[in-house]
Amino acid sequence: MTEAFVNPSEKMGLPPGTLVHVGKLPAKACRVTLIRYTADLAEEFPVENIDDILSHRQPGTTLWIQFEGLDTVELLTDIGLQFDIHPLVLEDILNTHQRPKFEEHRNYCFVVLKTLACREALAVQHEQISLLLFEDMLLTFRERADNLLDNLRQRVLHSKSRIRTLGSDYMAYAVMDTVVDNYFTVCDTLEETIESIEMTLLDRPQPRTFATIQLIKRELIHIRKVIAPLREVLLAIQRSDSDLIHEKTQLYFRDIFDHTLRVIDTMDSYRDLINGMLDIYMSIVSNRMNEIMKVLTIFATIFIPLTFLVGVYGMNFEYMPELRWRWSYPVLWLLFFLLSTVLLIIFKKKRWW
Amino acid sequence: MTEAFVNPSEKMGLPPGTLVHVGKLPAKACRVTLIRYTADLAEEFPVENIDDILSHRQPGTTLWIQFEGLDTVELLTDIGLQFDIHPLVLEDILNTHQRPKFEEHRNYCFVVLKTLACREALAVQHEQISLLLFEDMLLTFRERADNLLDNLRQRVLHSKSRIRTLGSDYMAYAVMDTVVDNYFTVCDTLEETIESIEMTLLDRPQPRTFATIQLIKRELIHIRKVIAPLREVLLAIQRSDSDLIHEKTQLYFRDIFDHTLRVIDTMDSYRDLINGMLDIYMSIVSNRMNEIMKVLTIFATIFIPLTFLVGVYGMNFEYMPELRWRWSYPVLWLLFFLLSTVLLIIFKKKRWW
Amino acid sequence: MTEAFVNPSEKMGLPPGTLVHVGKLPAKACRVTLIRYTADLAEEFPVENIDDILSHRQPGTTLWIQFEGLDTVELLTDIGLQFDIHPLVLEDILNTHQRPKFEEHRNYCFVVLKTLACREALAVQHEQISLLLFEDMLLTFRERADNLLDNLRQRVLHSKSRIRTLGSDYMAYAVMDTVVDNYFTVCDTLEETIESIEMTLLDRPQPRTFATIQLIKRELIHIRKVIAPLREVLLAIQRSDSDLIHEKTQLYFRDIFDHTLRVIDTMDSYRDLINGMLDIYMSIVSNRMNEIMKVLTIFATIFIPLTFLVGVYGMNFEYMPELRWRWSYPVLWLLFFLLSTVLLIIFKKKRWW
Amino acid sequence: MTEAFVNPSEKMGLPPGTLVHVGKLPAKACRVTLIRYTADLAEEFPVENIDDILSHRQPGTTLWIQFEGLDTVELLTDIGLQFDIHPLVLEDILNTHQRPKFEEHRNYCFVVLKTLACREALAVQHEQISLLLFEDMLLTFRERADNLLDNLRQRVLHSKSRIRTLGSDYMAYAVMDTVVDNYFTVCDTLEETIESIEMTLLDRPQPRTFATIQLIKRELIHIRKVIAPLREVLLAIQRSDSDLIHEKTQLYFRDIFDHTLRVIDTMDSYRDLINGMLDIYMSIVSNRMNEIMKVLTIFATIFIPLTFLVGVYGMNFEYMPELRWRWSYPVLWLLFFLLSTVLLIIFKKKRWW
Amino acid sequence: MTEAFVNPSEKMGLPPGTLVHVGKLPAKACRVTLIRYTADLAEEFPVENIDDILSHRQPGTTLWIQFEGLDTVELLTDIGLQFDIHPLVLEDILNTHQRPKFEEHRNYCFVVLKTLACREALAVQHEQISLLLFEDMLLTFRERADNLLDNLRQRVLHSKSRIRTLGSDYMAYAVMDTVVDNYFTVCDTLEETIESIEMTLLDRPQPRTFATIQLIKRELIHIRKVIAPLREVLLAIQRSDSDLIHEKTQLYFRDIFDHTLRVIDTMDSYRDLINGMLDIYMSIVSNRMNEIMKVLTIFATIFIPLTFLVGVYGMNFEYMPELRWRWSYPVLWLLFFLLSTVLLIIFKKKRWW
Repeated sequence: MTEAFVNPSEKMGLPPGTLVHVGKLPAKACRVTLIRYTADLAEEFPVENIDDILSHRQPGTTLWIQFEGLDTVELLTDIGLQFDIHPLVLEDILNTHQRPKFEEHRNYCFVVLKTLACREALAVQHEQISLLLFEDMLLTFRERADNLLDNLRQRVLHSKSRIRTLGSDYMAYAVMDTVVDNYFTVCDTLEETIESIEMTLLDRPQPRTFATIQLIKRELIHIRKVIAPLREVLLAIQRSDSDLIHEKTQLYFRDIFDHTLRVIDTMDSYRDLINGMLDIYMSIVSNRMNEIMKVLTIFATIFIPLTFLVGVYGMNFEYMPELRWRWSYPVLWLLFFLLSTVLLIIFKKKRWW
Repeated sequence: MTEAFVNPSEKMGLPPGTLVHVGKLPAKACRVTLIRYTADLAEEFPVENIDDILSHRQPGTTLWIQFEGLDTVELLTDIGLQFDIHPLVLEDILNTHQRPKFEEHRNYCFVVLKTLACREALAVQHEQISLLLFEDMLLTFRERADNLLDNLRQRVLHSKSRIRTLGSDYMAYAVMDTVVDNYFTVCDTLEETIESIEMTLLDRPQPRTFATIQLIKRELIHIRKVIAPLREVLLAIQRSDSDLIHEKTQLYFRDIFDHTLRVIDTMDSYRDLINGMLDIYMSIVSNRMNEIMKVLTIFATIFIPLTFLVGVYGMNFEYMPELRWRWSYPVLWLLFFLLSTVLLIIFKKKRWW
Repeated sequence: MTEAFVNPSEKMGLPPGTLVHVGKLPAKACRVTLIRYTADLAEEFPVENIDDILSHRQPGTTLWIQFEGLDTVELLTDIGLQFDIHPLVLEDILNTHQRPKFEEHRNYCFVVLKTLACREALAVQHEQISLLLFEDMLLTFRERADNLLDNLRQRVLHSKSRIRTLGSDYMAYAVMDTVVDNYFTVCDTLEETIESIEMTLLDRPQPRTFATIQLIKRELIHIRKVIAPLREVLLAIQRSDSDLIHEKTQLYFRDIFDHTLRVIDTMDSYRDLINGMLDIYMSIVSNRMNEIMKVLTIFATIFIPLTFLVGVYGMNFEYMPELRWRWSYPVLWLLFFLLSTVLLIIFKKKRWW
Repeated sequence: MTEAFVNPSEKMGLPPGTLVHVGKLPAKACRVTLIRYTADLAEEFPVENIDDILSHRQPGTTLWIQFEGLDTVELLTDIGLQFDIHPLVLEDILNTHQRPKFEEHRNYCFVVLKTLACREALAVQHEQISLLLFEDMLLTFRERADNLLDNLRQRVLHSKSRIRTLGSDYMAYAVMDTVVDNYFTVCDTLEETIESIEMTLLDRPQPRTFATIQLIKRELIHIRKVIAPLREVLLAIQRSDSDLIHEKTQLYFRDIFDHTLRVIDTMDSYRDLINGMLDIYMSIVSNRMNEIMKVLTIFATIFIPLTFLVGVYGMNFEYMPELRWRWSYPVLWLLFFLLSTVLLIIFKKKRWW
Repeated sequence: MTEAFVNPSEKMGLPPGTLVHVGKLPAKACRVTLIRYTADLAEEFPVENIDDILSHRQPGTTLWIQFEGLDTVELLTDIGLQFDIHPLVLEDILNTHQRPKFEEHRNYCFVVLKTLACREALAVQHEQISLLLFEDMLLTFRERADNLLDNLRQRVLHSKSRIRTLGSDYMAYAVMDTVVDNYFTVCDTLEETIESIEMTLLDRPQPRTFATIQLIKRELIHIRKVIAPLREVLLAIQRSDSDLIHEKTQLYFRDIFDHTLRVIDTMDSYRDLINGMLDIYMSIVSNRMNEIMKVLTIFATIFIPLTFLVGVYGMNFEYMPELRWRWSYPVLWLLFFLLSTVLLIIFKKKRWW
């Protein structure tokens, strides 16, 4: 079971909109940072309370506020009140068991995505990343700090690139693009594993191979569950007529949409490959079994009549004329030889081996 | 078979709209209670007849009338007449074999849901809950009294929360949210069972494991049948332009919609997991069988020629020169040893073990 | 093969619209009856020719004309001419291999349904029932007389119920409701059979059990083929803006639609159950086989080396020192005992039983 | 492989619209005939060149021009020029590997269908028939002459039926109706084969039975590929607002649409039946195998210990006290008898037979 | 793994729109050529830099610029700036892991397709071909030079055909048509392989046959992944109301659409055939296994009791009366003969062979 399967029912009974962080991660020290940027200048500040945000909000500048960790319920409540965010949205940010989704509200848009991380070959983990897009401000919420968005942060801070000039919606795009691009890394890891299994499969399949294939299959089920809804999310964004997403940026979202389709296609073809490999495994196992059975059958079928014959001449009857004939023994060996040869020829003809 | 499979045809032949309670539950004493609330005040009253309802209906207050048990046909008939409810709707309330659905009528909306209860691991039971939403009044109908809605009742009665101020449609939302949140509990129970089976499966699979997997699979079929139509119900509510559901509340229904999608996704991934586990079980069983067969084959194939040989020298021919040679017996043992070693090496090379 | 699979190509080559009764049933004496009713009065008359119908048609009254049997080609031709019915519609009434469908014409609506009858457990039979709905008249056409619509007939004739006041479209609804309600009876029969098979399956599965499961599966294929198109038919009726179906009655058709969805859902869950049962059967059979093979293997594997050993000391070599030793025989028995015990312990450890 | 699988890539590299007959059939003498008809009169003429057609085209008359064989490239080119037919359409007429389709052009409609012919039980062949529908003219193109349309031809020529009065679109309908009605013949043949296989299957299944089932399955795949697109074609015709298809005729096309749905439904239920039969076959084969294995196991398991015992008393030890006892031999026989009885009882209890 | 599965994540971390060639092919010398044509004249020029293009652009002429190889990043950047192409489009041209797609931009259309090449039977390779369609100019981008478009190039250069007169959109059609027509070659190759496997399968199936079937199955998965999106691409082109695609050319795109549907249909029927062949293979293997097992069983079952009997008379008891009877030995042989005959008759009756 991957992480997301923990306690989705923990909140049951509480009134909807109660802000509690529902998730598996321990409440680590939450880091909130704010990047204020214009085309010319970009600066980063730590955020402690709502005033740190309000004081940096100025016409003509764009803010990107990153939450790494979700245990800042007070700050979040303040933000909710200050910027008129619906309680259910705040709840969805904290409850990290959401399905990817896109919601348009009067003065902001809300996007939930899942990031995939693939530390080991078969331990894909997913985390929730939520985006709140305002006209001049982007808030991103993640469960913990890692280096997924570091590249992007460097780009905003240090290079006078497109990202500085195109506003908060482009910044939202940039974050989502990073998330989706990261899916390809997971694809690559999976593919390597699939390829190495294919090698093993054709070389020397073992029960362990079967187990690994099953594990990948399960992994794909989980990943698909996380990625598939993204398709509709991105369609919804493209169809949205919100003022917050400018026409110029729409083109970029279409690009992410294409990438998402590609990831889904790839996952689907992996699933087909995996199913094919299961068939191949089954067939190899059953072929080997058949081969073993054939050897047994051939051995047994040849020796059964011979053993019967030697038994016959091991009987202790007083009146068995053959026992006294001079050439009985060598003749019997000849018979053994002929009998087994005939049987082997028959088996050969029947293509038993 | 779960309960809902009983006698859906019991009513056949009666004119449509005849009010008969069709369901498995015995007609227990039906409890009807009424909660009248405003933002400031909330009171609960028992309801005996239609007048108990009419006397509490006042402008500015909202009523929540709970039916726990469905044997109050007279009261229901009176309500139907008083509030102009269509006979088919009344029939659907009493016949608890309905599919989840949403119907808009002139002066009220009608919603049918299923609650899931999961007393034991593999005995998920479902019950019908029907909602009649009027401008200033919500009626909920359940087959029996349990504590599912108690939390909600306490919230309305004792805390001055949002629920008191947002009208009957928000109250309908709150009821539906409780129902859907409860699905997650069932998910959790199922998941625990699935996980414990996975353990058993990898440790020591048994026919009983197989049976349990099949039982869960069947459970999932039933649950899906109950939950799947909910998707369309909630879509219909969101698309509805009824005056009874205010725009403010729509957002909350969208939230339930997301939850429902999540439950369905989870159920689907469970189904995939279960199917994977069936494959694994089959494969483990067949692997073990193969292992057994291999041992038999190796034993048999080695001893068959040896047994033939000892048979040969057990024959009673008078003229068998080997019988008289001094070293025949030790040489034969050597032969036995060599023969079996060679066969073992061949088998080893063919990777039979 | 159920009945509907007979001779759909019989009519080939004839110009379309030629009236020939295509169906399996022998042309029994066809019974045509007419019920004329108003809110206050209802009378039944036999119908011989077109004049019997025309003479009873009066403003303010509604006619329900029942055809039980389809060999009245002349009467039907007259009706076609008199009421301006399209030749293809008449053809579809007589050719009972139609798919369920709904057609709006200028002055009438045409509905084709299938009734299911389930005389024995696994012999579900279907018949066609066609409805021609005029403003003041409903014609129903069935292949033979049975008691399916008797209840309805009694209701119209003897009780002053809603049915008398709501016009021909409500009567059409009443007929269709009876047909769909009857599907639930078939569901119940199937369910009983499925449950009894489940019992047998867990108790003592036999090849016959497998055959029965397959038969039910086939039955479900046929039933689904008959019922599935009904969904679209009822959707089409609901979307229809024909004047013939009054808004008031639409609600009732929505009710049938819900029932149909429920039947289809139920059939689908039966199919899933049946597939699960096939898996269980297969698994039980293969488990038993495995058990048998294990016993063989254990027996054989233990006795094969023992039998080899007794063969060794049955050899007739002159120089076999063991043969002369005093304790050879008891020592050998001890060896037999130890060897088999060791093998049994190994098998036990490997969990072979 | 059925015929249609030949050389669809033959034309590659040629500019689109190049008129080459792509198909398997040898270029037989192509027969082109023209039927000119009004409500009162119908005459048939052979066609050699474009003038034969132009000279018969008169206001108030309808022409039906039949091409039986497709090697009249010149005539076709002339027709293309004269009646302003798009080169791609002409190409599609000659290249008989088209998918069924419907195309509306400015002055004509173009329909491609497939006819099915079923000379032997399992050799369904399909051919292309293309229709060009003009206001006063219908051209049909077939790969060879057979008697499929003869009936229709007779009807136009010799009976003053509806077909003479309803224009070229009705004639197109009549041709398409004949084609689709012919599908039912194929259905019947398939059904007979399926039924006869069912008999064999339950009586005495053989590898040949399996092969036949597989052949039918393949046949169904091919037929479905040919028929399935027809659904969309007929939907397109019904949705078309071309002036060439009059409202009156639309009703007839809806009728063909219904027939097509019925054929597809039937094919789908055949596929399900066939799959069920494959399962049954597999199960019967495996049941028989199990039975054989059981007999072997029972025989072996009973005799293995007995044979061991007789081996014991065949040993040549000098000191074996039993050998000298008076009643050893009969006691041993008694032991044999008891041992085998006990084993048989155990097997019986375990329900091995 | 086919080529397209390499490094789709290579670009991760770079800002979107960075021009890097992502693909497996080594950067060979890239060849860029320009064909300028009018109805009367067509000339070909090599292209080195952006000026080579600009100088040939004249009113009334159409340009077709072919990129064979994608390492001309500078030239491409210049083109992007000059003709106002969106950076994401340029990126998609260079990153050859795109899904087939169609994008409309203000002044140009962008199409991505995949070409299939089938050098050996089971090594289908796909490459990306991108098209940029301007009012008077078509740019095609391919990963390497091969002869796929040579035919087309010859047609433009040397024959005064339709292609010279119909503008850049028709040229785009001609390129796409060549690509799609080429799919049929792949279909043919696959079909030949499928047919030859079918032969082998019915003649003498071997594990290698199974492997080949699995390989084709995998090939089909890959091809489908490449071709399936084309359907939507061509639908989008047909629905597009861009000025760049003239109504006259739309008809041609509909033709490609039909071809694509045909390829997809064919691929689907191949997949069904392949699955059927896998079933047949499995059944043949299991049939042969059964046959082998039957022979073993019959041999063993007949000889087991006989061998027991000879063992009995090999025992060395002093008091065994039969040993001394004169006719024991011949009577025993008679018994052997009778016993085996009876068993054979029983097996025959049970239809074991």
